[in-house]
Amino acid sequence: MLYIVGLGPGDKSKMTQEAIDVIEKCPIIVGYATYMRLVKDMLDGKQIVSTGMRGEMERCEKAIELASDNQDVALISSGDAGIYGMAGLVMEMLAHKKQQLEVHVVPGVTASIAAAAQLGAPLMNDFCHISLSNLMTPWEVITKRVDAAAKADFVICLYNPRSKGRPNNLREALDIILKYKSPDTIVGYGKDVARPKEIEKITTIKDLDEEDINMTTIVIVGNKNTFVDDGRMVTPRGYTL
Amino acid sequence: MLYIVGLGPGDKSKMTQEAIDVIEKCPIIVGYATYMRLVKDMLDGKQIVSTGMRGEMERCEKAIELASDNQDVALISSGDAGIYGMAGLVMEMLAHKKQQLEVHVVPGVTASIAAAAQLGAPLMNDFCHISLSNLMTPWEVITKRVDAAAKADFVICLYNPRSKGRPNNLREALDIILKYKSPDTIVGYGKDVARPKEIEKITTIKDLDEEDINMTTIVIVGNKNTFVDDGRMVTPRGYTL
Repeated sequence: MLYIVGLGPGDKSKMTQEAIDVIEKCPIIVGYATYMRLVKDMLDGKQIVSTGMRGEMERCEKAIELASDNQDVALISSGDAGIYGMAGLVMEMLAHKKQQLEVHVVPGVTASIAAAAQLGAPLMNDFCHISLSNLMTPWEVITKRVDAAAKADFVICLYNPRSKGRPNNLREALDIILKYKSPDTIVGYGKDVARPKEIEKITTIKDLDEEDINMTTIVIVGNKNTFVDDGRMVTPRGYTL
Repeated sequence: MLYIVGLGPGDKSKMTQEAIDVIEKCPIIVGYATYMRLVKDMLDGKQIVSTGMRGEMERCEKAIELASDNQDVALISSGDAGIYGMAGLVMEMLAHKKQQLEVHVVPGVTASIAAAAQLGAPLMNDFCHISLSNLMTPWEVITKRVDAAAKADFVICLYNPRSKGRPNNLREALDIILKYKSPDTIVGYGKDVARPKEIEKITTIKDLDEEDINMTTIVIVGNKNTFVDDGRMVTPRGYTL
């Protein structure tokens, strides 16, 4: 059986009981080196298959190969494995190979949910997830989605907002958002959430310091009703108080 | 301290370690009766404050009142407390009262993520969450969001898709989606995910049996690339295989 396990954002306290149980039970753990470190106290006596960044295809191939040999394998992914994670890639590969394999996805707390909890309650009304990485999705598809989401006043969670190789993607996305949302719209972000150097900040679109944003940051742009109170970012659900 | 705790979709295995720890440590637990049942083996010797459905405001008021008295209180919510849950309502109430109170949100696995894991990997590309309940959001705001999401080919997760009081909301939303998406677009849904009567189904927009959908169902409408393989609903991330 191949288990694809979402570890949550980082700290073990944010893992589900099922994720812990599956990792404890599987003799083989496959994953990116950074994620291995998050569960290092659970790996004693196990076979570890670890690769570097951008080794996603290699990791999935290896996990499929080992599980096909009738072994219990846990392929670990940060956050939730089904959100920009490893679950889909494994299933795409199996479809491509026309191979049948029992796969069980263990859901986890994705980065936006973890960041939102630290910021307050910004996701209390309809929201979108958009990845600003155009490595695998054409930039014009991404900008079309940003435009649609801003126009309909969704709360917008931006994954992979900015990197050295793509320093301007966040700026371009914010410029599109500003066609519809006020520059005073509340923006919150969480960097390295549930990890040792965690930082959260609440600001506005116009005051956002892009230099502070990197690939391990989740940016949450509020809707027109999002407000700040007592240091918390809150999007109202619509109750009459 | 007031903890607002997301229990995940139902089964204790889908709770985070932190959620379990907080419930164990707090002497007072506040929540909807149905959610109390999900954690009933953890409630021995605790003060329980439970209300019926639509008692959200009463529960939040009570939780704030008890925590203001310098006690550790856990207000429990299913899924993630910050997604259409109790976290935002508590913060709105505190803002309204101009009251300061230490609040800690414990994130959880929201229903869409749990359903997605059971269906396959439908959320591997950009997606939206839209609640079709127009109790607190005007229907024209909701339909505008459905229209924008479908037009930009987001994967769309529909919360509160259909109830006895709102039997036609799902139909109307699907009709809007059909302006842009093919009737053969893959749709998956999960009903009572991680609870005893759990059901998952994968179909298409045109073959969806609305009678099978109720308020405890999460409906996930794929994007134009979403496919079914070996019983799994998969939205490609964009890797070249």
